[in-house]
Amino acid sequence: MNLQNDLILRAARGEKTERTPVWLMRQAGRVLPEYREVRAKMGGFKELVKSPEFACEVTVQPVDILGVDAAIIFSDILVIPEAMGLDYEMVESRGPLFPKTIRTAADVEALRVANGVDDLSYVCDAIRLTKAALGNRVPLIGFAGAPWTILAYMVEGSGSKTFSKAKRFLYTEPQTAHALLEKITQSTIHYLKAQVAAGADLVQIFDSWAGILSPAQYREFALPYIARISEALHTLVPVTVFAKDAHFIRRDLGQLSSCHTIGLDWTMDATESRQLIGPDKTLQGNADPCLLYSDFATIKAEAHKMLRQFGSQRHIANLGHGLYPDLEKDKVRCFVDAVKEFQW
Amino acid sequence: MNLQNDLILRAARGEKTERTPVWLMRQAGRVLPEYREVRAKMGGFKELVKSPEFACEVTVQPVDILGVDAAIIFSDILVIPEAMGLDYEMVESRGPLFPKTIRTAADVEALRVANGVDDLSYVCDAIRLTKAALGNRVPLIGFAGAPWTILAYMVEGSGSKTFSKAKRFLYTEPQTAHALLEKITQSTIHYLKAQVAAGADLVQIFDSWAGILSPAQYREFALPYIARISEALHTLVPVTVFAKDAHFIRRDLGQLSSCHTIGLDWTMDATESRQLIGPDKTLQGNADPCLLYSDFATIKAEAHKMLRQFGSQRHIANLGHGLYPDLEKDKVRCFVDAVKEFQW
Repeated sequence: MNLQNDLILRAARGEKTERTPVWLMRQAGRVLPEYREVRAKMGGFKELVKSPEFACEVTVQPVDILGVDAAIIFSDILVIPEAMGLDYEMVESRGPLFPKTIRTAADVEALRVANGVDDLSYVCDAIRLTKAALGNRVPLIGFAGAPWTILAYMVEGSGSKTFSKAKRFLYTEPQTAHALLEKITQSTIHYLKAQVAAGADLVQIFDSWAGILSPAQYREFALPYIARISEALHTLVPVTVFAKDAHFIRRDLGQLSSCHTIGLDWTMDATESRQLIGPDKTLQGNADPCLLYSDFATIKAEAHKMLRQFGSQRHIANLGHGLYPDLEKDKVRCFVDAVKEFQW
Repeated sequence: MNLQNDLILRAARGEKTERTPVWLMRQAGRVLPEYREVRAKMGGFKELVKSPEFACEVTVQPVDILGVDAAIIFSDILVIPEAMGLDYEMVESRGPLFPKTIRTAADVEALRVANGVDDLSYVCDAIRLTKAALGNRVPLIGFAGAPWTILAYMVEGSGSKTFSKAKRFLYTEPQTAHALLEKITQSTIHYLKAQVAAGADLVQIFDSWAGILSPAQYREFALPYIARISEALHTLVPVTVFAKDAHFIRRDLGQLSSCHTIGLDWTMDATESRQLIGPDKTLQGNADPCLLYSDFATIKAEAHKMLRQFGSQRHIANLGHGLYPDLEKDKVRCFVDAVKEFQW
């Protein structure tokens, strides 16, 4: 495997890069008209996720259209609960909905530990197809949700502003919560190892609801499970952890020796984050997605400002969150180009 | 005016307190069965806000029922847009909805600067009634939304996970945004001065959506207007600023000489916050509201842990966010009692 562009892998490993690499969370998605066209032919989001051919097609799109330095496999973090036996629906413009949620120890007992190769073979197939389609142009990123975020959906049953049912579960049923987190962690390790075996060059753990836990709860219910996953993967591929909104955990993440890259959202100052995290991690992020509503000159100027703040090495440029679907493709491309053209 | 219990005012001014005072955001509200009973007699949330008699009744309730050290006038931050000429509806279980939103400079031009005494006389009447009903037992807190949060609703038109329309407005129409913030700021200063004239003993500025702005945007579009309001009020009464989720602005708030107290949410560590903010402010907060789903022993232990973390002086105990409506009254009372009984 000789990748023509391995900038992101080198940046993640702390090796020298001649320019800052760039990719965008949700780059394979509704922001691209080409994605919407493909999707219109399909039954819905879940069908798209489960079709390796279509997942491959939309995964490669942003590499061609936006010129990003990596592809990320088109999938969803909620494939894990489903593979564990807890089904969900994706309700248009409302998000995921679990008809049944986890309440008791018996509910947790009834779940199985998912086996990546068997239960999630469609993702592995999509990765294999995509690797072939990419033809070694850029690395392919695999991913999974962090155990706390997956638990949050399994208990809450849907998205929420406060996730108060899920947090209540941590406060009132801590043992059951740990049992559930354990099963999710084992499933996720199998799943990410299967993704790597299928060809993923780097894996990212998304803790989307990290920021609604207190520091103490995060240290008890979230970080140890992320560490377990990271430790199981880091000798295979570089590992990125993105704990959105969890400003309070940056110092701890800096000490997580098994992880290579820390994702930052746009509220986290580059200099302060570097101080908290230390010199041994690559930082990823962190432009505000709403910046891409600006005019082209502003996007370019702010992208360059971001690059100067992070410095020329150990940085992977990205947004601080996923692309919003109503952003214009040309504005997104402008951000990517601004990173790529920057002269140090 | 000789308040029998002025602990909160003394704590805010940095004067010695014999114990840590406590009140709770949203203490006047659905968490109390007594509130739900009063409310069932009324047409809806907005009618309740506009009826001084009922606002007075529910404002006093938590002083009697929970034993808190302050009352906070029952009202809503969105009375300001309405007084400026932008009406809203409160949709049951969905939140506020603005039939018309702000888009252009002409929209901003058409708004008036609200006059607290005339446009919002019902709030001032409620404050006068409440002061009489409290009979100098505890201080009465007045409040308003911070200009950025008010703008966010006026532009977005409703609650939102990302407030991307409001943030887009800042990126694409910065001058119009500043013009709108200026009118909101003037309205808010008039409004809070009228609240103080009517009897409010302390005012709190709620920046509920502070945490979705980048540090740079917060410094341009939010903090200067909060500073203006704080400067206009601080010689009259102590001023509290609560910028929810804006971990990145704590150092700046510590340097805002006109403000007495900084509110903290539950993600903000007490020791770290004190270091960032410095010794000259009182800190308010910051238990996770979901802690109150725990058993009584845990609530008590965690409340005491919080008190020890903040220290015995310059702290006003509170949650890091408003009470959730499905919390049990006895659990809420347990938290209040735990603070009041703590022996240093």
